Amino acid sequence: MPFVVSGVSIPCKKRVRSKPSRGIRDMLDEKLIEQALSDGSAVRAEYDGLHYIQFVDDTKKVPRGTVSFDGRVVYGYGKIGRVLSLESGLKAQFSHPFWVEEKIDGFNVRIVKVRDRIIALTRGGYVCAFTTDRIDDLLNTAIFDKHPDLVICGEVAGPENPYMDDGPPFIAEDVRLFVFDMNRWDERKFLSNEEKVHLMEVFQLPTPQRFGRFSVADVEKIKQILLKLNSEWREGVVFKEDSPRNHRAKYTTTNANIIDIKAGAQNLLDLPSEYFTNRILRLVLFLEEQGIERTEELSQRLGDAYINGLFEAIKQVHNQNKVTRTYRCRFRNRDNAFKLIKHLESAAGHVQLEMQDLREEGGFWKLKFERTFAKSSGQLSSLLKGRLMYD
Amino acid sequence: MPFVVSGVSIPCKKRVRSKPSRGIRDMLDEKLIEQALSDGSAVRAEYDGLHYIQFVDDTKKVPRGTVSFDGRVVYGYGKIGRVLSLESGLKAQFSHPFWVEEKIDGFNVRIVKVRDRIIALTRGGYVCAFTTDRIDDLLNTAIFDKHPDLVICGEVAGPENPYMDDGPPFIAEDVRLFVFDMNRWDERKFLSNEEKVHLMEVFQLPTPQRFGRFSVADVEKIKQILLKLNSEWREGVVFKEDSPRNHRAKYTTTNANIIDIKAGAQNLLDLPSEYFTNRILRLVLFLEEQGIERTEELSQRLGDAYINGLFEAIKQVHNQNKVTRTYRCRFRNRDNAFKLIKHLESAAGHVQLEMQDLREEGGFWKLKFERTFAKSSGQLSSLLKGRLMYD
Repeated sequence: MPFVVSGVSIPCKKRVRSKPSRGIRDMLDEKLIEQALSDGSAVRAEYDGLHYIQFVDDTKKVPRGTVSFDGRVVYGYGKIGRVLSLESGLKAQFSHPFWVEEKIDGFNVRIVKVRDRIIALTRGGYVCAFTTDRIDDLLNTAIFDKHPDLVICGEVAGPENPYMDDGPPFIAEDVRLFVFDMNRWDERKFLSNEEKVHLMEVFQLPTPQRFGRFSVADVEKIKQILLKLNSEWREGVVFKEDSPRNHRAKYTTTNANIIDIKAGAQNLLDLPSEYFTNRILRLVLFLEEQGIERTEELSQRLGDAYINGLFEAIKQVHNQNKVTRTYRCRFRNRDNAFKLIKHLESAAGHVQLEMQDLREEGGFWKLKFERTFAKSSGQLSSLLKGRLMYD
Repeated sequence: MPFVVSGVSIPCKKRVRSKPSRGIRDMLDEKLIEQALSDGSAVRAEYDGLHYIQFVDDTKKVPRGTVSFDGRVVYGYGKIGRVLSLESGLKAQFSHPFWVEEKIDGFNVRIVKVRDRIIALTRGGYVCAFTTDRIDDLLNTAIFDKHPDLVICGEVAGPENPYMDDGPPFIAEDVRLFVFDMNRWDERKFLSNEEKVHLMEVFQLPTPQRFGRFSVADVEKIKQILLKLNSEWREGVVFKEDSPRNHRAKYTTTNANIIDIKAGAQNLLDLPSEYFTNRILRLVLFLEEQGIERTEELSQRLGDAYINGLFEAIKQVHNQNKVTRTYRCRFRNRDNAFKLIKHLESAAGHVQLEMQDLREEGGFWKLKFERTFAKSSGQLSSLLKGRLMYD
């Protein structure tokens, strides 16, 4: 893999390492942290005796989810913009070739070593009790012995996870980790693709499918990748420019949107209405550009996604007077199940939780818990009791 | 028809007429009007030399759409709440028997005689140049010779109307009027059902289907009416309590919601996202309660409604760089076509209009005009050009 792309030289590994805090760390000086704490954009947090500062809002200098332990910083994983049109999106967004990786439908984590512990941070900057418990199952942690300053960014996905309705169709049980980026403490910039791939290979880290390096001229090949992902009900891809600015964009399939609509319809009233219209928009734009035939089967699946999800919610309100969903996940350490529930209860706002089962089985503590969707429960109950609605 | 219902006597015709302005008119004294004009909840308006005051916001004492000509008042047609659950809705809302009428999918008008002219007011209190032009085609205006103080409330519906995407399936061309309520100048209270039906019969006014007087115990009969309306792709019903408070509620069919979603999907980005989620909710609640089978055909129609509407919009942006819809309507007087366009341009906010054709044919001036949906056009164009979207 050449290290010079389109005439632009990529900073080499050595250079990146030799200045681990070149100016960026300085931005997070004590004054900035104090200011953030006083204006509420950062809060003091604690996990299992580990005290840290969590940036809860996006600010000019610090993205949401950034955390600071002992004065050192793990930057939040920035938002990746979405293109809804593939060909024009690639043309508009990328001036250099780019890497194409599969986008996995899970939850984002950053895995780091703090003092002697390896922990996983969620997108929002909480320590995830679930992922942290399972780190040894998810990746080869020996990587932190050699690279203690590494931040491993990835997606945790699978049917047995505590946050999301379901997992990708190709994961039959439990969860898996997919590493897609790395950076270092006190640095926002990601490692170059070469550095990242090197470490992934040396430590055999699990990764999403990496389709290779393409340019805008390869749009037909990229379309073929996406059509295949769509037919396998996979989410889509992320494009990462092979250039110093490392610009990114994501693009998702029609079928990923049908999956989301189906999951969302059950708790429709707890979601912003835009959740659905945005997905309809993505779904149809993908169809139209990829030349996918508008079959009866496709329409039927979309219709079913709405009708069956909401039908299930109504049945639940008839039967149990509330809309609930059951989640399952596995822990190595029993205590972490309680830590997770405690965290979800305090962080999740209007979502109520009930732990239903926790039992040892096959080397795991298997947790089952139920979420109640408060708005869906309340509004559906009231409508089913004959309340008038004005619109 | 007995005039006493469940032991409550209904005010008789004579009594209603003998006090045409009993206290209600007094509420709209000059001071109130001046106050409304100064705080912006009312504005001075003019139509074809006719000056009036238009209440543009709902206020405590005056509903939106109320208008005042020469110190006398035509009250706005109040909102009717919606039940999403039939049986419990009837139980919760009605303590007396109620009339059941078909709800027609058109636009609401109030037809009144002002000085020597008969005009139609829209829901918002504008004079509707289209309906006003066509009044002689829509009803027997001789009713105003005998009852000059009457306010005739009804729905104008049909495929050739200037406001809505389409008309009910049972109207093949042009528009028709469906009278469903009457009151008088300076009175908010509607005439009793008996008075209304009497006048409708004497003057052969067109009305929606009136299914009769029912009580909560008749819910199975009402379900049958609604299943038939649903199978004919009609909108639904309005319930009007046969009691002095004359409480109302509306209830709509699954298929009416599919029609709305299909129409809305073409200009999805110009509508609030709740437009769609509310209709999905109504659609599934109707299905569930009425025991309608969740067939593949039904899901397919719902899926098609979303996909085909938005697909059409995307095609339009590819072909003409904007999302448009063509409207047709007929006038007796050519000038009124221009008045309508002028009104739509000034009142419709971000919707742009273009008159495309106006020709004399079969005794009418046939107008064809195009609306451009600004947000759908702008956002779709920009997404099709590859803009990044953050969500």
